[in-house]
Amino acid sequence: MTNICSRQQIEEVLPGLDILGLIEDGFVAYSKGQAVVPPVGELSFRQPPGDVHIKYGYLENDDYYVIKIASGFYDNPTQGLASSNGMMLLFRQQTGEPLAILLDEGVLTDIRTAAAGAIVAKYMAPEHLNCVGIFGTGVQARLQLEYLTKVISCENVLVWGRSEEKLESYKHEVEHLGLQIESSEDPDMVASNSQLIVTTTPTTKPLFHPDSIQPGTHITAMGSDTPEKNEIPSSLLGIADLIVADSIIQCQERGEIHHAVERGFIKIGQVTELGDLIQNSPKTTAEGITIADLTGVAVQDIQIAKAVYHALHN
Amino acid sequence: MTNICSRQQIEEVLPGLDILGLIEDGFVAYSKGQAVVPPVGELSFRQPPGDVHIKYGYLENDDYYVIKIASGFYDNPTQGLASSNGMMLLFRQQTGEPLAILLDEGVLTDIRTAAAGAIVAKYMAPEHLNCVGIFGTGVQARLQLEYLTKVISCENVLVWGRSEEKLESYKHEVEHLGLQIESSEDPDMVASNSQLIVTTTPTTKPLFHPDSIQPGTHITAMGSDTPEKNEIPSSLLGIADLIVADSIIQCQERGEIHHAVERGFIKIGQVTELGDLIQNSPKTTAEGITIADLTGVAVQDIQIAKAVYHALHN
Repeated sequence: MTNICSRQQIEEVLPGLDILGLIEDGFVAYSKGQAVVPPVGELSFRQPPGDVHIKYGYLENDDYYVIKIASGFYDNPTQGLASSNGMMLLFRQQTGEPLAILLDEGVLTDIRTAAAGAIVAKYMAPEHLNCVGIFGTGVQARLQLEYLTKVISCENVLVWGRSEEKLESYKHEVEHLGLQIESSEDPDMVASNSQLIVTTTPTTKPLFHPDSIQPGTHITAMGSDTPEKNEIPSSLLGIADLIVADSIIQCQERGEIHHAVERGFIKIGQVTELGDLIQNSPKTTAEGITIADLTGVAVQDIQIAKAVYHALHN
Repeated sequence: MTNICSRQQIEEVLPGLDILGLIEDGFVAYSKGQAVVPPVGELSFRQPPGDVHIKYGYLENDDYYVIKIASGFYDNPTQGLASSNGMMLLFRQQTGEPLAILLDEGVLTDIRTAAAGAIVAKYMAPEHLNCVGIFGTGVQARLQLEYLTKVISCENVLVWGRSEEKLESYKHEVEHLGLQIESSEDPDMVASNSQLIVTTTPTTKPLFHPDSIQPGTHITAMGSDTPEKNEIPSSLLGIADLIVADSIIQCQERGEIHHAVERGFIKIGQVTELGDLIQNSPKTTAEGITIADLTGVAVQDIQIAKAVYHALHN
């Protein structure tokens, strides 16, 4: 019997789940080599423009395997549709029986991405945290902040965006968090005044000047997940005390680390994988600049799909 | 709104569909380069042993893209479960919206595979056909014969299998076709008395001696779909008048053609792709031996998923 779960059903159980703990376990298993995660399957469309990613895999000795389909069709908003869509499929690892179809419309991908940002902050955010800087005003800009509040305490937030309208709308969306939110259209002002920075944009040109970043700052770049996108200056990676990747193999092909290696600022051997960081050093003590590059790994999908399935069917 | 379709619903509409015509169109589009079919995604499991294949793609300027998941877990029968399972997912090519989830449990894969065998017979079966030879007694051995009867007329069938029990059970399963079915455990007897042979086994050692095949015989090998499987003697390909592949690129990696090329009996340039054969020569006139190698292509999945979706929702 295959269970079909609607977005509404999924959203109802999400608040009760320990998403962070489960995804942390997933990253650890991944870095220990206990996850089977083949290369991402891709379909591209030109007219109208769209991309489909198929991420799939399993943890060894687990009960399930998961196949996640996520699409982005960038002209959708002109028809009143969201750009993103998708579903997660959960199967029994011992028999191949389909157990659940989670028709989440991309929500679970958004949540597991925000959770990875929070996990990074838990291990990498500086102790002295006066202000969080958020770059971007979209869904991830909102969710990253929501999930950050689960692991750090900081009252002040500076948000950067390209238009005053989007910044106002963002402030309204996150006002339920009860934080002091200020906005700015000056990226270097946001960069120089924040000790924890999260970038959530699809830009191909760095958002701020490297000199704007103060010692004792951590930056999580989660927007750059393709070979072209590039949110932070590659030279910053060259002077960072610690660089962390969600998946070293993936970050050699896409994201910030890929640019910095290509431009000769770092060697891939300098990069620590997130799952190894979690296992080996409960909290980083770097006093300089630290950087995490998140490109999204199928273990996150595996873990969140399992958690939702258990909540709905146990 | 995503439509969820059960195996029963799917089986109810199948008899009314022109599966052969649609899959023929799919092969033609594929050979014309109008289909986008990325490499197959694979997951393997050791304990218990299982394989999962993800086949996906789309026809250009069509309304849909299709993702098919098919699994084989070989210990399932000990628990009273079928080895095969799977589903097909249909999405709107313009927006990424999921339109239908066909919970076919692998039935549509079985049917589209049988349809490919019938299409090959339509174009390649010899004019003088006294007896059809079937190797194997499983689901495909039955379905291939059922679909063959849609395109050829031949009263006599010889079936080969490894046990008398399975042969008796097979004869019972196909008796509704009203044919003269004889069985044998001697593969060379079946091979030498049949002018149209279909092999449907997972063997890694050729089923019969090359000398058993008479001039004027066509062989369709549909069982060998991995690099290891090998149903017909590679030397037979060396003396064949015509060799056809469902997908030349796939048959270079797996199946009969791959073995014959590797052993030096043929060059890949001698192979004709099925879609090209359909377009260029309405009926082959070869008087010697002809061979078709079927490994299964995502265009078949695309076409059958679309047909079922239309039947259920239009």
